[in-house]
Formats: sequence, structure tokens, C-alpha cells
Amino acid sequence: MRALHWDGQGLQLSKSYPMPRVADDTALVQVRLAGICSTDLQIFQGYMGFVGVPGHEFVGEVRQGPADLIGKRVVGEINFACGTCETCRQGLGRHCPSRRVMGILNADGSFAEYLAVPSANLHVVPDCVSDEEAVFTEPLAAAFEILEQVQVPPATEVVIWGDGKLGQLCAQVLQLTGAWVTVVGKHQEKLALLDKLGLHTVLLADWRPHRVDFVVEATGSTAGLSLAIETVRPRGTLVLKSTVAVPHSLSLAPLVINEVTVVGSRCGQFPPALRALTQRSVSITPLIDRIYSLNEGLAAVDRAAQPGVRKILLKTSPKQV
Amino acid sequence: MRALHWDGQGLQLSKSYPMPRVADDTALVQVRLAGICSTDLQIFQGYMGFVGVPGHEFVGEVRQGPADLIGKRVVGEINFACGTCETCRQGLGRHCPSRRVMGILNADGSFAEYLAVPSANLHVVPDCVSDEEAVFTEPLAAAFEILEQVQVPPATEVVIWGDGKLGQLCAQVLQLTGAWVTVVGKHQEKLALLDKLGLHTVLLADWRPHRVDFVVEATGSTAGLSLAIETVRPRGTLVLKSTVAVPHSLSLAPLVINEVTVVGSRCGQFPPALRALTQRSVSITPLIDRIYSLNEGLAAVDRAAQPGVRKILLKTSPKQV
Repeated sequence: MRALHWDGQGLQLSKSYPMPRVADDTALVQVRLAGICSTDLQIFQGYMGFVGVPGHEFVGEVRQGPADLIGKRVVGEINFACGTCETCRQGLGRHCPSRRVMGILNADGSFAEYLAVPSANLHVVPDCVSDEEAVFTEPLAAAFEILEQVQVPPATEVVIWGDGKLGQLCAQVLQLTGAWVTVVGKHQEKLALLDKLGLHTVLLADWRPHRVDFVVEATGSTAGLSLAIETVRPRGTLVLKSTVAVPHSLSLAPLVINEVTVVGSRCGQFPPALRALTQRSVSITPLIDRIYSLNEGLAAVDRAAQPGVRKILLKTSPKQV
Repeated sequence: MRALHWDGQGLQLSKSYPMPRVADDTALVQVRLAGICSTDLQIFQGYMGFVGVPGHEFVGEVRQGPADLIGKRVVGEINFACGTCETCRQGLGRHCPSRRVMGILNADGSFAEYLAVPSANLHVVPDCVSDEEAVFTEPLAAAFEILEQVQVPPATEVVIWGDGKLGQLCAQVLQLTGAWVTVVGKHQEKLALLDKLGLHTVLLADWRPHRVDFVVEATGSTAGLSLAIETVRPRGTLVLKSTVAVPHSLSLAPLVINEVTVVGSRCGQFPPALRALTQRSVSITPLIDRIYSLNEGLAAVDRAAQPGVRKILLKTSPKQV
């Protein structure tokens, strides 16, 4: 099959990558659309030491697997848990210490024609949700994860640092709670997308420093992290949504002095995200920059790495390529 | 009056330091006993840019102030709040943005014969609590602060990093919840104090890395912070009790990947600490290394700065000096 392959040094389009092996508890999914995420770009910098087919955002069709899933259009949770350890028994398979992670850790991902996913990780996509929307289920679930971890009362004043894909999704999700959400970003055209949705946005150059109770860091930059720390009111909450993998100089003393609660937040469950897509309570397609074919994968990754680009998708079903 | 004076460069014993000025809402306290804290030692490294009389742990007698306090033995909360701003109105005077802090920020402290404290900050010490116990009210309140911020269910497994004064007090307080508390430290003789109280202790050299739900960082060192981060189970809680004021190299990515909640924790309210001292639910006097007179203040500070030393106290009432 065709697949993008990262060998630890470079990314290649392979036209004869081995088909995924499908175990009893696994389904073979034919990928229709895959999304390129900042984490993928970090992998191409050496993050996680991953080698294989990257990609963890996808929507596809089940070709082999449980009878009730064959032919269904699905999305899939990315953490492949053992299912039997103490962490899994607590319902925290996303944190299973021996987990594989699609396209990130010991499991091939979605930048390919086919993909093997544990059947238990799959969710059927309702017909009213398009491929272009469904492929956002994973990052949208990551945004909903904030609400699984922290209660956000409706009157909360929220500041989100970062107007990228993740910041935009977090803003839309937190707005659903009734909170008053402000997004601070560098890109007028991205903030304009949020303005249209009735969110409050501020261009970084116009930001007048003040503190609020609830802050989300979604810039993925050390500068953004510092600004986010400075924006939290004493006894407030700072949610870290993006990883800054490289160690950098930092003092946590302000967090102690101001008694800030910092909540690390990563992957979320898919059902709330699928419900939001079904109910159209979030707006997704304006976040798409461009759809490339799998054959154009290298150009697509180059484009995704350019600053300020919205979501880049890869169309991988045979008929379109 | 006599006072230890830090001029930003060095510490001197002054025999003619001006008496504190006492405003209408302020009491004049004659210090009986003061404690030297790690924060004081950090101030002598330039922390907070403080200049004046250091010291924020004390027990003393009220000499001027409200009639009902005159002659009473008191301890005092260290944050001098404005009382009128939004933060103060929310009951968070400890975080008042224009606060002064005793011996730390724009207010002379307790390493002196006399001290001015807002009357509202004072708490009368019950007769059954000795001076040597009462002088620990402030750090003990800081330990109780953890329970004001975070719920610790009785079955929680807790690991506390650091066997110093703060680690010992946090261990004793968290043990009161019914939690299973392990203290990891470098000093066999300090851990022995906790062993006697029925706590579980582990010498650092014998620590077998594993993760638990609830971790407290009380080492004040960057190495301790890294170990503490590595000890938190996914979705667990890490309480930062000590400040590492100097920026150091750090990646917060593990906190995001493991979805850890980090809670910065500083000063606490005094009443829970005074109740614990009254009820003898915590053991204090074994934490004392030695009591010096105020005249021996410089030697006392030198001693306090030596690694592994327990609490150093300064006896400042005229009759003992």
C-alpha cells in the first residue's frame, strides 16, 4: 500500500509499504481523510523517537474486523491500551503504561491507505457529519478533555493563549459552558474566524496584561507558556494543552506564590466530540487550509510546517488519489 | 531596639534599630521567640530584593494595640493585606496584590525585639501551647494549606519529597487525613523523627521509583522537583510547597502527557494550625535544633544555613538575652 514513512531521519512516500497486520481484536480501516497535527511536526524533529507511519487523526471505512463495523465510517481513539493493567481497570486506558499510540509510539498511523486499530477504539461517525468534520474528532476530543478534568462554572472568565487549531477548538468548547472566553493570538485572519462565532479575541500586540481565573496555554511555545503563567489570577487555574517538549529555562516559583493550579491535559474521549459535531455546536470546516492527496504528502507536510497555516488534510482513499 | 538588619548586602546586629511605628490598625508585639526559615536564607541570596528586618515566624506579647489583645501571647499571619481590593473582598488577603509581607516584602519582620503587625493578623495562643510550639504556627499553617486547596481522600497514597521542616510538617498534617504517607529524604536522623510518629519513611538511596496519586515537593531543590514530577501517577496531583526561585531547565511535557494537576501552595490560615497544636495532633519540639539569643543572631543564621540542620530559633525577649 501507499504510506508516508518516517525512518527517524526523513519522510518518504512509500508505494509498497506492508499492509497492516490485523489481529483478532483489531480492525483494518481504509483511510479516507487524515489530519496533520503539530505533534506530527514535532515527531519530524525527533519527538518520542518514533519510526513508522505517522498520523493519528483520521476518518475511514472498516474493511476487516467485527461484523457490525464492516463498511462503517469510523474515527478511532489513538491510545492502544493493554486493557488489563491497574490503570486500564481504572478506566484510564489513555494512560496505560504499556500503551502504543497511533502514529506516535510503536504503532503505525493514518498517513497511509490502510490502518490497523483496536476495534474497541473505533466510533461510528453519524451520517450527518462530513469526512472533513469527522477528521477533527481527535483534536476536538482533546479540547473536551479540559471539561473532563476541571469544572468550569458558567461565569468563569477564560483567556486562551494561541489562535491555532487547538486554541480555536478549546475556545469553542469552553464557550459552550457559558464562560466568557477571550482568545489571544498573533494572526488576525485566524482570530477573525473566532470573531464570527461571537468569541472575544485580542491580537497579541493589543493585549493589555491582566489576570483571570482560568487560562489555557495552547501556543506550544515557551514564550506562550510564560505569558500564560502571568495571566493566571492567584488561586486560579492554568490548563496546559500543548507540549513544549524541549527543556527550557523556567521558574515555577510564581505558581507557588500565587497558588496556581496547573492542569496538564492531553487526549480526550471521542463521544462528546462526536456529539458536538452532530449537534453542530462547534464550527470546524473554516479551520481547514487545504486538502492534499496522499501522493502529495511531502508537500502537505511542508505546508503544515509553515507558520500560521490552518489544518492540512490528506485525502487517502484510492478513488481520489 | 536590637534587631538583625539585612541591608541587601550583609546581615548585621543593630543595637539601635528604630522602634516599629504603630498605626491605628496595628499592634506592637514584643517578640519572645522567632524561627529562621529557608525563605530567610533565600532572602540573604537576594530573593524578593528585601531590605530590612527579616523573619516571619514568631510568638510574642502585645504591648500596644487593641485593649483586648494587650498582654496576650500571640502569633501573626504574615501577609499584610489592604483589606479593600477585589482579592481581599474575596477573602484572599494572602494574595492581595498590594500586600506587604512580614520580613519578606516591604515590612520589617521578627528578628528583632519588637514588631508591628496589623491587629487583624494576630491570633491569641492558648496557654497549653508553649512558645517553642507556637513559633511553628506559620509553617504548620502552610502545611494545612494543602488541605484547604485539595481534597485528600483517606485512602490516598502520598509521597512527600523532603525530610526538612516543611516536609515533616506536611507529612504530619497529611497523615491526619488517614492517607498513607511516605516521606523520602536524605537524612536518616530526620526520617527517624517521623518513624517515631508512625510514618513510613524511605532514605533517598533506598527509594525504588514508582508512582502514586499524590506527591508533595518540599525539598526546595531542582533535583527534588524533577524526582517529584517522576513520582506522580497519570491524572495524579503534585503539590509544590517549596519555591525554587532561580529559573532552571525544565520541560513541563511530562505533566501534559500524564495529565498531572500541579498545585502551588504557600501560606495558610492560622486557626487550623493552632487547633492542631492545642490538640497535640502534631509533634513539634523534636524539630528544633537549637535556640540562640538575638545577640547570637549571626551565628544562628550561619547554623541554619548548614545542610541538614533542623529548626533554629531566636529567643528575643529581654530577660533571656
